[in-house]
Amino acid sequence: MQFLSDNAAAVHPAIWSAMLAADAPDSPYDGDAISQELDAAFSALFGRECVALWVATGTAANCLALSTMVPPHGGVICHREAHIEMDEGGAPGFYLHGAKLMLADGPDAKLTPQAIAAVIDPIRADVHQVQPHAISITQASEYGCVYRPAEIDSLAAFAQERGLRLHMDGARFGNAIAHLGCTPGEVTRGVDALSFGFVKNGGLGAEAIVFFDPALADVARYRRKRAGHLQSKGRFLAAQIMAMLEGDLWLHNARAANAAAAQIAAAAAGRLLHPVEANEVFLTLSAWDSAQLRAQGFSFYDWGVDGARLVTSWNADEGHVSALTQAIAAL
Amino acid sequence: MQFLSDNAAAVHPAIWSAMLAADAPDSPYDGDAISQELDAAFSALFGRECVALWVATGTAANCLALSTMVPPHGGVICHREAHIEMDEGGAPGFYLHGAKLMLADGPDAKLTPQAIAAVIDPIRADVHQVQPHAISITQASEYGCVYRPAEIDSLAAFAQERGLRLHMDGARFGNAIAHLGCTPGEVTRGVDALSFGFVKNGGLGAEAIVFFDPALADVARYRRKRAGHLQSKGRFLAAQIMAMLEGDLWLHNARAANAAAAQIAAAAAGRLLHPVEANEVFLTLSAWDSAQLRAQGFSFYDWGVDGARLVTSWNADEGHVSALTQAIAAL
Amino acid sequence: MQFLSDNAAAVHPAIWSAMLAADAPDSPYDGDAISQELDAAFSALFGRECVALWVATGTAANCLALSTMVPPHGGVICHREAHIEMDEGGAPGFYLHGAKLMLADGPDAKLTPQAIAAVIDPIRADVHQVQPHAISITQASEYGCVYRPAEIDSLAAFAQERGLRLHMDGARFGNAIAHLGCTPGEVTRGVDALSFGFVKNGGLGAEAIVFFDPALADVARYRRKRAGHLQSKGRFLAAQIMAMLEGDLWLHNARAANAAAAQIAAAAAGRLLHPVEANEVFLTLSAWDSAQLRAQGFSFYDWGVDGARLVTSWNADEGHVSALTQAIAAL
Amino acid sequence: MQFLSDNAAAVHPAIWSAMLAADAPDSPYDGDAISQELDAAFSALFGRECVALWVATGTAANCLALSTMVPPHGGVICHREAHIEMDEGGAPGFYLHGAKLMLADGPDAKLTPQAIAAVIDPIRADVHQVQPHAISITQASEYGCVYRPAEIDSLAAFAQERGLRLHMDGARFGNAIAHLGCTPGEVTRGVDALSFGFVKNGGLGAEAIVFFDPALADVARYRRKRAGHLQSKGRFLAAQIMAMLEGDLWLHNARAANAAAAQIAAAAAGRLLHPVEANEVFLTLSAWDSAQLRAQGFSFYDWGVDGARLVTSWNADEGHVSALTQAIAAL
Repeated sequence: MQFLSDNAAAVHPAIWSAMLAADAPDSPYDGDAISQELDAAFSALFGRECVALWVATGTAANCLALSTMVPPHGGVICHREAHIEMDEGGAPGFYLHGAKLMLADGPDAKLTPQAIAAVIDPIRADVHQVQPHAISITQASEYGCVYRPAEIDSLAAFAQERGLRLHMDGARFGNAIAHLGCTPGEVTRGVDALSFGFVKNGGLGAEAIVFFDPALADVARYRRKRAGHLQSKGRFLAAQIMAMLEGDLWLHNARAANAAAAQIAAAAAGRLLHPVEANEVFLTLSAWDSAQLRAQGFSFYDWGVDGARLVTSWNADEGHVSALTQAIAAL
Repeated sequence: MQFLSDNAAAVHPAIWSAMLAADAPDSPYDGDAISQELDAAFSALFGRECVALWVATGTAANCLALSTMVPPHGGVICHREAHIEMDEGGAPGFYLHGAKLMLADGPDAKLTPQAIAAVIDPIRADVHQVQPHAISITQASEYGCVYRPAEIDSLAAFAQERGLRLHMDGARFGNAIAHLGCTPGEVTRGVDALSFGFVKNGGLGAEAIVFFDPALADVARYRRKRAGHLQSKGRFLAAQIMAMLEGDLWLHNARAANAAAAQIAAAAAGRLLHPVEANEVFLTLSAWDSAQLRAQGFSFYDWGVDGARLVTSWNADEGHVSALTQAIAAL
Repeated sequence: MQFLSDNAAAVHPAIWSAMLAADAPDSPYDGDAISQELDAAFSALFGRECVALWVATGTAANCLALSTMVPPHGGVICHREAHIEMDEGGAPGFYLHGAKLMLADGPDAKLTPQAIAAVIDPIRADVHQVQPHAISITQASEYGCVYRPAEIDSLAAFAQERGLRLHMDGARFGNAIAHLGCTPGEVTRGVDALSFGFVKNGGLGAEAIVFFDPALADVARYRRKRAGHLQSKGRFLAAQIMAMLEGDLWLHNARAANAAAAQIAAAAAGRLLHPVEANEVFLTLSAWDSAQLRAQGFSFYDWGVDGARLVTSWNADEGHVSALTQAIAAL
Repeated sequence: MQFLSDNAAAVHPAIWSAMLAADAPDSPYDGDAISQELDAAFSALFGRECVALWVATGTAANCLALSTMVPPHGGVICHREAHIEMDEGGAPGFYLHGAKLMLADGPDAKLTPQAIAAVIDPIRADVHQVQPHAISITQASEYGCVYRPAEIDSLAAFAQERGLRLHMDGARFGNAIAHLGCTPGEVTRGVDALSFGFVKNGGLGAEAIVFFDPALADVARYRRKRAGHLQSKGRFLAAQIMAMLEGDLWLHNARAANAAAAQIAAAAAGRLLHPVEANEVFLTLSAWDSAQLRAQGFSFYDWGVDGARLVTSWNADEGHVSALTQAIAAL
């Protein structure tokens, strides 16, 4: 009974169908018919003109997006717990050619204008210190918490005021929307580029970089090839993404994962380290309790001392979830 | 009737089966059971100890391999027509952090020790000039020609003598082996790393970087993640590769593609620009003749003035090939 | 009456003499007779074999040294207040091709094995997190404090145990030695490379990178040229350095600067934020007191709120120093 | 009797005087009074608004200038013999983060629109090939030949038409102007940035990057610091440059060097490999003749087989030059 991560979960049947259906000869790279549909599909979804590029991984999506916004001598403000800082093996340093990550703090791994100001206000506007060029936020955050539209608006206003670009790492964007119940457009106003994740949400190996500024996409296209991320049979990535958008499968899957997490959260009330707003549950859990759960067949990550992280997937097994809630209640 | 390229051909059914079969929960990244099989499988295939890493594209395979051999201040000798020079959007500059490609000449897009010496001998051994650190060759070459084992041996001896590493871009390695009829090990003696291509040979999106020096693989693992190429559902890449190795599917497919090319070559004797040893046919073809063929429904690339490139795939349609040979004969 | 910094102080007359004397035709770059003397001179000074390269700035010295120790996918541990982190405009990101600075804490801007362990022990030994490859310490530290030989020994032992290289930023190495009264060799045991600063100590534009591992120097030579730091009239940089070593001018100058700082420290006892061990004095000083001193003609930097940093130079004016001590006493 | 290079010649007395005069306390880096004069001085010299930054070396000047024009995924067209390609140890790869040098041909190491078009016209405008972003030309060229104003105008028009920036490597810009007898402005129309060299012309260690587009200078300032080229006692670099501009010392020195070269050229008529328009003479010279000259005490570089390069300096010794002309005549 696996609650380790959503990143290796099974692939949704609709994804397989779409991929198999795409197995007819077509132009290589992103010249195929399906890849050509992406811009219109995302523009419709976001209610404004977008340019969307597929890539295989979230790390590539984040770093390619940022590489269009930040010169090598610049910096990106992100949360101290951000994936780009903690879990991408230094990919931002590679893709941004040595630009600097500037770490800000904030509860629930979320940033605020105040938290960002605390980091960048002390930076002297001279050549001896790296100057910030962009902000990167994660929606839902690394602690499974969700920015509200008003919070994004306030970050976007702050970014504009300071002349900074705004990037959103949406590895779990679907889960955030599922929680908010708003449209994707309502929570991306003022965002320059979004890494829209599908792999954690039932995809196989395709994420979309959604550019709200087409000029950035023009650069990203070159950078994607240069990074070896322009797959020749790109139709299979495009097909995954279109299948995800079809009938809002992405939202459906995210709701399922969120619901499972909410069930666990309800059973663990009083133990929660962060509000459970997406598909991740962070608990206080003693070593003894952890061992108990593991002995019953539940797998999950420890989180610091006396803590645990449990992640649910789009295909969370109801039986496993119920068993887990009972096991937690019984601790 | 498509003879443009093998890079967007259909995916072999065995690949689909293997991918579908891999859709059970397992560890993320390359921690899954199938990824763990690669080293042994390639070691068996090459008859010596190998470490193999999957990546989605040939560009990533080539550049990650080279990034383990060449420091940022160094250089790589390759043929003027090499894919890394002509068609990878500057990826070597990115992955090697500004290292230099040093271009050598040679008939049929193949290198010889003499051709390499002509490039590197004039380089002064001082800090004002970039020093070579590796050689990269392509098997089969960009003109569809194949290095014999003795040619590789002589390049490897030269590389060792000069203190250079040796990389082989094997985007069409299968086609080369199919032509040679030797074992993979016989034509990679002294090679440090091989980009073993499967995408052009019936795969979907998986290539193997085969390291014959495990120390290089240790570096490559970090570089792969840093480049955003460590897919979380890596089992699907590993599954493609294992399916390709199973029963020598890679060789079977390559033979089919080569046979189709040979058929075309036979029909085009007298027009051949290069020996046809793999699955690419380079012809002299006047604009008039090209137009004739296109009018009959054949698609292919022009090659310079009065030339054409035709590429066959693992699933070359016999009817199309026959039609083409007749059409060429009729010109 | 200037106590802003030592970095723009006058050039010592002996430096001028040596430079003028070097104005005879000789080989370009570092092929001249004076440049050839450096290795032997530093080997004698440190009591072990060294290879020394000149560069014009401390930033170049630090970053070139580190670039020989840390691969692009690696990390360097340094103090949160280190010059490489705070004041080099992102140069480490440039020279190390995106490698990561890992920030540790410690009183007086000094590192300890414990402080470093606190940063690196939580790093998982997997490809998702950047692995440390080197430690960089500053002697004297950014707060004007000095590592004792035993402290360096313990850091060097820790570095060796963890497989890390050890770099010392010695922009004020002379001031450290002047304080310690030991030999340079006694406080660099286990150090792989030292940026030995002269510009802040009476030089014009020459620092030495002293490599205790010759293999690193071989790489640095290429990197220096590649960074545009191999001046063609390098004899004038070598001449500055040799003049500094001649009769231990570097030590004489450092002692003078330290003595002036000690005088100020004595007058400011009770206000000191850090021990005064080199030529920098960090004081608590209210805005009112700062204004008072400035009104009397003293210039210096504010340091946070209610603090000030005063730096003395090799040619500190005795009258200015006395005036300052009286003015502080009178506050 | 040294005709090896102008790059290690003596420093002009006026340079020494200016440096010594600058040895009074002032602001560090480029905040000093002399550095502040550069923009106005160069604006006056070129007859249009310029922003000028000092750096120590020509390699740094060239590469910093180009780094403001070319993104990491772009390319720079230069002559196959250009210094940035042949003699800068891969510095463009470093400063441009892996951007590509695209090599064009042309007699006398000079480029023409036609020669550039021959290189870039075949580049497909797709992401698989690196796109050109700038042109770099050398004035005077690597073979000592000089672009006329009309030639620059035509290159600038071509650059504008193709959306390319134009950089001029003016390591020997003074020699070019001395030959042309025009104003600096007349031969830099349409140029975006000029590396104005002084070191080969009597300076010690200071070159100017003259930006005709101030936006590029804003970027270059950050890049200069990031490259470790912002010397803290920058006043000594600024002083050298101002001394060079004072009374057109740069032009005076260049004329002297050119005159010496012209004298040698006159004696070697019939042997010249290239027109002698600056201070470099390329001769056919058999091994026997070379040995003869060397036996008489003349030092110079061989140039290929049966060739030689002789370079004259601002302080060319009249006796040595006469002796050489006689020796050549006597061959």
